[in-house]
Amino acid sequence: MSPTSEELRAQASRLGYVLDDEVAEAMHTAVTAAEPRIAALRDRPAPFDLGADPAHGDAWLRRRDRVPLDEPVADGPGDDVPGVGDLLAAYAAGTTTPERVVADSLAALRAAHETLNCTIAFLDDRAAAAAAESARRWANGTPRALEGVPFGVKDVIDVAGVPTTAGSFCHGDTPATESAEVVRRLEAAGAIPVSKDATTEFAVGGPHPPRFGPVANPWRLDRWAGGSSTGSAAAVAARAVPFALGTDVGGSTRLPSAWCGLTGLKPTAGAVSRAGVVPLSWTAETVGPIARSAADLTRVFAVLAGADPRDPRQEPRPDAPRDLRGLRIAVPGGAFTELCDADVRAGVDGLVAELVAAGAEVVEAEIPGAAEALPIGYGLVFTEAAALHRIDRDRWDRYDPVVVRRISQGITTPAVDYLRALQFRVELQRELDAVFARADLVVVPTCPSTAPRLDGTVVVDGVEYPLYAAQSRSTMLGNLTGVPGLAVPTGVAADGCPVSAQLIAPPHAEAVALRAAQTFQSRTGHHRRRPTVVTGKTSGR
Amino acid sequence: MSPTSEELRAQASRLGYVLDDEVAEAMHTAVTAAEPRIAALRDRPAPFDLGADPAHGDAWLRRRDRVPLDEPVADGPGDDVPGVGDLLAAYAAGTTTPERVVADSLAALRAAHETLNCTIAFLDDRAAAAAAESARRWANGTPRALEGVPFGVKDVIDVAGVPTTAGSFCHGDTPATESAEVVRRLEAAGAIPVSKDATTEFAVGGPHPPRFGPVANPWRLDRWAGGSSTGSAAAVAARAVPFALGTDVGGSTRLPSAWCGLTGLKPTAGAVSRAGVVPLSWTAETVGPIARSAADLTRVFAVLAGADPRDPRQEPRPDAPRDLRGLRIAVPGGAFTELCDADVRAGVDGLVAELVAAGAEVVEAEIPGAAEALPIGYGLVFTEAAALHRIDRDRWDRYDPVVVRRISQGITTPAVDYLRALQFRVELQRELDAVFARADLVVVPTCPSTAPRLDGTVVVDGVEYPLYAAQSRSTMLGNLTGVPGLAVPTGVAADGCPVSAQLIAPPHAEAVALRAAQTFQSRTGHHRRRPTVVTGKTSGR
Repeated sequence: MSPTSEELRAQASRLGYVLDDEVAEAMHTAVTAAEPRIAALRDRPAPFDLGADPAHGDAWLRRRDRVPLDEPVADGPGDDVPGVGDLLAAYAAGTTTPERVVADSLAALRAAHETLNCTIAFLDDRAAAAAAESARRWANGTPRALEGVPFGVKDVIDVAGVPTTAGSFCHGDTPATESAEVVRRLEAAGAIPVSKDATTEFAVGGPHPPRFGPVANPWRLDRWAGGSSTGSAAAVAARAVPFALGTDVGGSTRLPSAWCGLTGLKPTAGAVSRAGVVPLSWTAETVGPIARSAADLTRVFAVLAGADPRDPRQEPRPDAPRDLRGLRIAVPGGAFTELCDADVRAGVDGLVAELVAAGAEVVEAEIPGAAEALPIGYGLVFTEAAALHRIDRDRWDRYDPVVVRRISQGITTPAVDYLRALQFRVELQRELDAVFARADLVVVPTCPSTAPRLDGTVVVDGVEYPLYAAQSRSTMLGNLTGVPGLAVPTGVAADGCPVSAQLIAPPHAEAVALRAAQTFQSRTGHHRRRPTVVTGKTSGR
Repeated sequence: MSPTSEELRAQASRLGYVLDDEVAEAMHTAVTAAEPRIAALRDRPAPFDLGADPAHGDAWLRRRDRVPLDEPVADGPGDDVPGVGDLLAAYAAGTTTPERVVADSLAALRAAHETLNCTIAFLDDRAAAAAAESARRWANGTPRALEGVPFGVKDVIDVAGVPTTAGSFCHGDTPATESAEVVRRLEAAGAIPVSKDATTEFAVGGPHPPRFGPVANPWRLDRWAGGSSTGSAAAVAARAVPFALGTDVGGSTRLPSAWCGLTGLKPTAGAVSRAGVVPLSWTAETVGPIARSAADLTRVFAVLAGADPRDPRQEPRPDAPRDLRGLRIAVPGGAFTELCDADVRAGVDGLVAELVAAGAEVVEAEIPGAAEALPIGYGLVFTEAAALHRIDRDRWDRYDPVVVRRISQGITTPAVDYLRALQFRVELQRELDAVFARADLVVVPTCPSTAPRLDGTVVVDGVEYPLYAAQSRSTMLGNLTGVPGLAVPTGVAADGCPVSAQLIAPPHAEAVALRAAQTFQSRTGHHRRRPTVVTGKTSGR
């Protein structure tokens, strides 16, 4: 039995959240809709000796050894716009310079922005100075790992000297005093931030953020680029930057990657620092890179991953690599495929077939708990978001109504339900333990459909669904448990938009997913398919 | 503004907790009383860049290096009943045997139990077998670190083959299948569990648990031994066992130690495994040993501390020791002394004077946040306890009414308030960071009064106070932040009962507190003062 609308309003008001009638009504509707799943979990016995310690569930992640990254392998016949590896090779060969590439990238970003609305700020001066330094280093023979490679930064991530708007009227009144650790690391490796990229408001809003508006998809301008890392994916797909940083709370790096035909990684929770990132959910959130190929992601992830004392959840791990031959892959159905377009499923089948042809073996495994990951994960995220956004509750009238509608669902969550959800998180981690005892990788769809329409609907096998009912069905599992997920393009559907498969690896085994994806990408060309809107130049080749 | 009684009842009932009128009314009274402090915290701004990640607040603890333990120093003129070190010396000298000591210990426990009601189970058979093995090992020349030393186990901690009652009618219907990690470690070091010791129900109930009744204080039979590790402290004080295991959620190891004239340690959160312990609060709870001297605690803690993969919060640390000379001690007032008996304060002053005479230096430091640690800590503990005890909510009518009254306060806690409390925990850890930058140890009273009367009141400077208003004022800080605290006897008050000071060390610096206490104890004799009821024999000497 759900609380009444009046009870919820009274409780929210007592907690200091002022909601107008419409929001209060929407909150009641959402809480009532979520109640059966939450009640079912509440009533699932949690005996004292369950031992699922919700306050310290990350121990499961901390205990795992990190699988070291291989060197990126050759990428097959290249895209005609250079990626990360291509640029580094071109700089080394002296066929282009960081100054030229950065200038071209900024010009391409402006062209992409004109068509797609993907950029919040262009970082010309800062980028020009960094490019000059990169040019000196290439000339000196002292280039760093990503020397002179431009990249985009989702505008929830701080870049020193630039405001971080989080896509909102209510955030980022002053420039950030220092860069987020992820940006600092990339800059220390010679990479050059050229843009702050559009985001759905606070990484949780809808396709139409009030301050900056929607971002179109380079594959079809009547489609959304996806979110929340919306501008980052659009800019990479338009070939305006070779890679960009996103964040992922329920799929926000993987979904726009899938919908823009890109390769995108949500790393293991704790593997990449979140210091200097506008938070949305302590439990679910990670920073992740978006690029065109797994080879390029491998180069970028090698720089991003590693210890940062400023991020409390973040720790390093060492370990040894393995060969792809004999790789055991599980291809579970259930929640992953029951609502899923045939073209998406065909893409998954194609990827599995290629991995098998490359020596992998398919093993049987299902993950029944995955069906609960979406509703329980949303409940947990919205509760943490409601707590975090309490400080601005008197300005929620200036927020995207979608943000308010989503996070207000968490205001009245009882702590005992929140704690039960965290216990469930540990239970689900144990369920994955059993799967990963038999399989090295889990292969599922990244999302059930191709890119959403700009009106916020998706189409699965000809039937329309609301965005939030569909989008995170396969991705929230990773956010709730912390396991890494890699979105890999698997082809183009009948509507002309890309489809994607997700490789889910054990904690800190990003390398296994990246290696499998590199093998797949070296044998096929899906990640090199070009969208309609390509603004990047071929100056690198 | 607090919720009404009807609102709270409706909410509790919706969450599946069935409360009768009286309990519901008590819950409303308690929630209303707690509301102002919680509301104040709720309204203290928590900006996005606060960076206090409540889901991973233990990172503060994990980042610290462990200070290695010194060898226990000589203990000054001995008590005439052997402690841990005395027993080991006697075994080595061949003046007694484990069989004789264990038999004497069990006889003394039975005598103590007759007077004090301190024991739930006597482990005769198990202990006799272990004593025979210990005797062989001493004869063989292969004794382990605590070979043949008997100890008591608070009955919330599993001993294989013995039911764990948690002091309740509703727990421990079947024998535990394996021992808790702490018991396993002690047994692996040759120590011998001889008893399951009385506990307040579920380590949170009042002095009169319905199933087993109250435990009297060996210093004055009209006083309570304190809780929740009530039987453990009584048995050690009566000299029936040289040490015993307790647990500490708000002071439950330190308070009965203080009130029974013993030395008791709440280790750093995560330093000692909790696997196999009936849980009460994920965030606040630790296992801790109670003995007569810091030297004996040092011997026991060396065995207890260390990595256990079954406890998700538990990790090892290495580091280097330091000399006591030049030790900087802070002696804050505020919440620690504003409600505190003059005899207790005199004991703190005496301990500080001895440490200064031994070379320590007093530095200025206050901990203003400590005033909030008690109400916020209780709120957090009761919320986690309400979640944990939901599974038995249909049997709460058989619980100690004090348990129900305390944990029912947590049923309706909003998750946003729970999360704010966890953020506060991180804020308080940072406040301690600043203190520990200037001081190596903080010295405060362990509790404001001598042992409570059996009716559940304490007397401070002649004025009566209810137990729960007074008892955890100085101890909850350690449970909320995770820092270790050591209760050290500092003398006997005018009422014939012991007083105690608490040494609070930085995370994983138990060794610093233990070393300071050993120095104090080697210069004074307070820890050798004997209570009225002494049932232990002198067979070791």
